[in-house]
Amino acid sequence: MERGESQLNATQDWADASPRRFRSIVRSAQWTAPTAGVCMGYAQANLVVLPARLAMDFLVFAVRNPKPCPIIDVLEAGCPDPAYSAPGADIRTDLPRYRVYRRGQLEDERSDIVDLWQDDFVSFLIGCSFSFEKSLLDAGIPVRHVELGRNVPMYITNIQCRPAGVFRGPMVVSMRPIPGRAIARAVEVTAAMRAVHGAPVHIGSPEVIGIADIDCPEFGDPVPVNEGEIPAFWACGVTPQAAALAAKPEIMITHSPGHMFITDIRDRDLHDFVCGLGGTAK
Amino acid sequence: MERGESQLNATQDWADASPRRFRSIVRSAQWTAPTAGVCMGYAQANLVVLPARLAMDFLVFAVRNPKPCPIIDVLEAGCPDPAYSAPGADIRTDLPRYRVYRRGQLEDERSDIVDLWQDDFVSFLIGCSFSFEKSLLDAGIPVRHVELGRNVPMYITNIQCRPAGVFRGPMVVSMRPIPGRAIARAVEVTAAMRAVHGAPVHIGSPEVIGIADIDCPEFGDPVPVNEGEIPAFWACGVTPQAAALAAKPEIMITHSPGHMFITDIRDRDLHDFVCGLGGTAK
Repeated sequence: MERGESQLNATQDWADASPRRFRSIVRSAQWTAPTAGVCMGYAQANLVVLPARLAMDFLVFAVRNPKPCPIIDVLEAGCPDPAYSAPGADIRTDLPRYRVYRRGQLEDERSDIVDLWQDDFVSFLIGCSFSFEKSLLDAGIPVRHVELGRNVPMYITNIQCRPAGVFRGPMVVSMRPIPGRAIARAVEVTAAMRAVHGAPVHIGSPEVIGIADIDCPEFGDPVPVNEGEIPAFWACGVTPQAAALAAKPEIMITHSPGHMFITDIRDRDLHDFVCGLGGTAK
Repeated sequence: MERGESQLNATQDWADASPRRFRSIVRSAQWTAPTAGVCMGYAQANLVVLPARLAMDFLVFAVRNPKPCPIIDVLEAGCPDPAYSAPGADIRTDLPRYRVYRRGQLEDERSDIVDLWQDDFVSFLIGCSFSFEKSLLDAGIPVRHVELGRNVPMYITNIQCRPAGVFRGPMVVSMRPIPGRAIARAVEVTAAMRAVHGAPVHIGSPEVIGIADIDCPEFGDPVPVNEGEIPAFWACGVTPQAAALAAKPEIMITHSPGHMFITDIRDRDLHDFVCGLGGTAK
């Protein structure tokens, strides 16, 4: 995730804002920066929009690969209102920045997608690691890339996702170096957060999952693994986006990295919203 | 679930069979009885088959209501082979008994669906409470209806599922009376089994969830709640079937009650198969 350093004061101004209020500012194009740090305590989400004819296969891909693809909400075809996760919001205008891909190529980056909207578009909201990193920090576990103000390092692994229809590809993981004394706690904390990737998929030896050089991540920035620390690898939300792009759909729209959708779901309610009885976010 | 009392000896003969061997016997129509007790240690599954044009909405319904609708596997349109949960099996022949519904009405009950198969049929395998009851028993928690050789009591509640497309309806729950000392353990044991309904959705006062008379279940058989016991209510797999039937699809095929599909997934691996890294059942 990009961090909008120049927006730091503005971000702090919006840390306590309600999601509804913040989305209205985004909708009126007064906010175009990354969303890390705004509306603290509310879950942010990745966005993937696909035509209906690909939506079933993409949802099956997500169901078959729940760790990299934790679905928070699926909007019905043509519907831009996330009626459960953010009633009254509009998925076409309420993210600060969108990416438009055609046949797998980035074609455009823009601040709304109103004029691109199709009646057959199905929107997927997918869990974001912001919620999960906040829980690690709250548990007293250091998060290196946050400390260093960098993007998390991400790697393509030799773990193949279960394919579904046209969607297939390797799992992408993010890495956080964890002190040996804190590994068990980091597992406990994240295992309880299935809605945002859950427990690590691998801990220790990077080469076992096909990572040749931990200092050369495929995405994001490298971070040092210090003496006494073990690299822990979590399934990463880049996985479904990469799989979708590899399928070269005629059109696909996503958020721009770091420019997320802010839901009405409190982080503390996210697990129950996704894995429990549900209801509508308040 | 019906229990095939007259098949008890036969069931015991098949308790240690491999799923592959048992399915071949079912396929050759030598076994037509309920499946409780066969292939012990392997997960059994509910089956729902729907035409592709309803499949996306049904899967969204399941994703929105994961406690009553825990998806174990989704087969691609027209594909009768559960390539992940039971590679080489055939969903059209490998269940002992099927029900065929047209526009929500039961039309036929039969031992295979080969001649009804359509290229656009999507098959859903949904978690079954057998796995979950075995874990309760293994943890030393009594399961009343099993003790009494009855079907579990099931009730329609006032908890509304989140609708998706044409699919909507109330949550159906099953009830097991649990001694006060064992409630916490029963929650722990089942909370770890998200692939088969997870933790109870309600414990105690039946009237709060719209159950007027605990002695009059809508499905299954009543069981006594003894002194010192609390009724615990779990989301029930009847919910998605009832919601699907209420939508009156042109055609829908399910297993007959108690006549389940035996997967290659060991009960102990079920959570990881469904919620973890997946892979293919071995």
